[in-house]
This record gives sequence, C-alpha cells and structure tokens, in this order.
Amino acid sequence: MDFLPKSISKLIEELGRLPGIGPKSAQRLAFYLLKRPEVQNGTLGEAVLRVREGVIRCEICFGLTSNSPCGICSDSRRERGLLCIVETTLDLIAIEKTGEYKGLYHVLEGKISPLDGVGPEDLRIAECFERLSEEGSEVREVILALNPDVDGDTTALFLQRKLASFVDLRISRIARGIPSGGNLEYTDEATLIRALQGRQVM
Amino acid sequence: MDFLPKSISKLIEELGRLPGIGPKSAQRLAFYLLKRPEVQNGTLGEAVLRVREGVIRCEICFGLTSNSPCGICSDSRRERGLLCIVETTLDLIAIEKTGEYKGLYHVLEGKISPLDGVGPEDLRIAECFERLSEEGSEVREVILALNPDVDGDTTALFLQRKLASFVDLRISRIARGIPSGGNLEYTDEATLIRALQGRQVM
Repeated sequence: MDFLPKSISKLIEELGRLPGIGPKSAQRLAFYLLKRPEVQNGTLGEAVLRVREGVIRCEICFGLTSNSPCGICSDSRRERGLLCIVETTLDLIAIEKTGEYKGLYHVLEGKISPLDGVGPEDLRIAECFERLSEEGSEVREVILALNPDVDGDTTALFLQRKLASFVDLRISRIARGIPSGGNLEYTDEATLIRALQGRQVM
Repeated sequence: MDFLPKSISKLIEELGRLPGIGPKSAQRLAFYLLKRPEVQNGTLGEAVLRVREGVIRCEICFGLTSNSPCGICSDSRRERGLLCIVETTLDLIAIEKTGEYKGLYHVLEGKISPLDGVGPEDLRIAECFERLSEEGSEVREVILALNPDVDGDTTALFLQRKLASFVDLRISRIARGIPSGGNLEYTDEATLIRALQGRQVM
C-alpha cells in the first residue's frame, strides 16, 4: 500500500493498534474519516489528545472521576451498608447502568493474576480494608462483583478469606448462570454446572 | 454516566459516531486510550487531525494519492491495455492487494444511485470516456469491478451500454459466485443462481 498517501497509511496504522480493530476495519475507518467534515475529525482528534485531562481517582472508591470524592461516594442517597467490589471503573459503569444497585463501590484497579505478576499488594485491597475498619463504617455486606474467570475467582477467594476477619460482615458474590436470552443447549458445561449449583427455590 | 469525567464521556461520544463502533466498543476503546502511554494517544490524535494533509486525487485515475499522476498511473511496468473501473480507492486497494492485477484503474468516486440522488454526471464517467477516447490510448479491455449490489449493477449496465460505442473494446465484469471457503448450503439463492450461470468449463 505504498501508493497510499502517507497521512492515510499512518492513520490506518494507528487505528490498527487499537483493540478489536483489525487491518480491514482500520482501513475502512480511515477512509471514513477522510471523507467526513474536517470539524468532526477535529473534535475526535482533540478528544483523543485530551482524554486524561482532569481525570483522577476517587480517594475513597478509586473509581475514575473528575472530583474526589466522586459523585457516588459523596451522594448521601446511596446505601452506605452495601459495598460492591469491582475490578475496574468499566465494571462499575456496567452495574450503574442497571439502575438496580444503590450502594457504594470499591474499585480494585485489577485482579490478582500470578501469570501477569499482579499480587494483592498491587491492588486497592489495603485501602478497602482501611475503609471497612474505619470508625463509623456502616458497611454490612460486601458484594464481590469480580469477573467469573480464573483470576477473578482467585481474587474473590483471597478477599473472602481476608474479609472473614470482619465479624458480622456478610460476603456475597454475584451469581453465575445462563445469561438472559441464553440457551441451555449452547451453554458450556462450566456455566451449566454453576447454574445448577446456584439454583434458587421459586 | 454523568459521574464519568467529561473528557472520557466526550471521547466515548466521539468514538461512538464512527461506523461499526457501538456504545460498548466506544466505551472500551476510551478506557483503553485512557490507560495507554500518552505519547501513543498523541500519535493517534495527530493522525486523525492530519489525515487529509497532502491527500489529492490523481488527475488520471482519480484514486487518492499524494502525487498526481499517482504511482500506479505513472508506473511504466503496468499493462496499459487493461483498465479496471472501481467505485472507490478502497476497492482499488483490495484489488491491488491480490497482486494479480497489473493493469490500470479508474476510480468512479461512487456509483449510480437514484435513491441517493447520484447520477452518472456525479461520477468520473465523463473523465473515463475522455481517457478512452484520447489519442494514444492503449486500452483494449475494460474490467468493471463494481460491487454486486443493485446500484453496482445499474452502474455496470450503464457503463456497458455507453462503452459499446468503442468498437474493438472488450468489456468484462468480475465474476459473481460462491466465495472461497464458502458453503453451498449457506449460500443465498441469488448468489447460487449467479454461480450456476457463471459456471466455467474445466
């Protein structure tokens, strides 16, 4: 593709570095950007360059925010008895979008992953314990909303054991099973076993 | 998501405007950009802002290029007897990547589309005829490499009729059929009919 103008091949190259964007998509996107009004590209380019501007971590929950404490932590209407532990701010957003959860969050900033060299000390686990130990902490239940994979399981197990030191603290983990709209026939065995084990009396 | 820093929600919004990028992908991409080194975002942002820099259309084939005539039109090793008519530079790239075609191109910059209000006069059809009528034109065959959809068919038919005025000019259209690796069972009827009609003696 050496016959392409350099500015286009450069953009294709840069777009192709993004996760989930293969060479074909990168090419199509680049030509799309080439065609659309300059001002829209200006807005996108600026947004990319400025994405970190004013982004900090909340001093309480460690979610990404522009003000610390963040809007959730400082919202007096949130239930202070519930603390949901998530891996990332993206997971927090996913739960927030359901509109079902009214408690607080704690973002670990990752999960324990021996293969990637991530240990408990690399996560915001100490900060979580500090929160729970604080005088005046109203937390009665910790919900582990970790992803249902090997590292998520490891992290959940680690937290479960550690949190056992808090007497009267309920520890739960979000349910595993067949997703809504899913199909038993096409569900993998591991999920099906979990769905059976987690069956609930009707 | 009003609890998200503005710079992040702005980037999610802008990424979500791109074709093929839904709200979830936009969100994931934005958080990916947030995490990776600033310098890489700088390169991407600049590439978006500068995509049109130095991009022009070749005065002969109307493909996008940084020099006119473009590298293909000015390459003396290309077969000057073959002219491949394509809708866009993206189609030209797709054919170039096969490495099979050694002739020249003509980019129409679209296709005839009554629904979108695009007529023959909006395309580079007049320029194509000029090329073919020029004294010294060596073109013996025109290959119509238009997309196999309604508008592509209309455009091909239009060109076929118009080009008939050139005596001794061979007009062909790229084959329609089952794609390599495809499966008869899952092929739609229209394609199967074309594959049967286009059968070749072995």
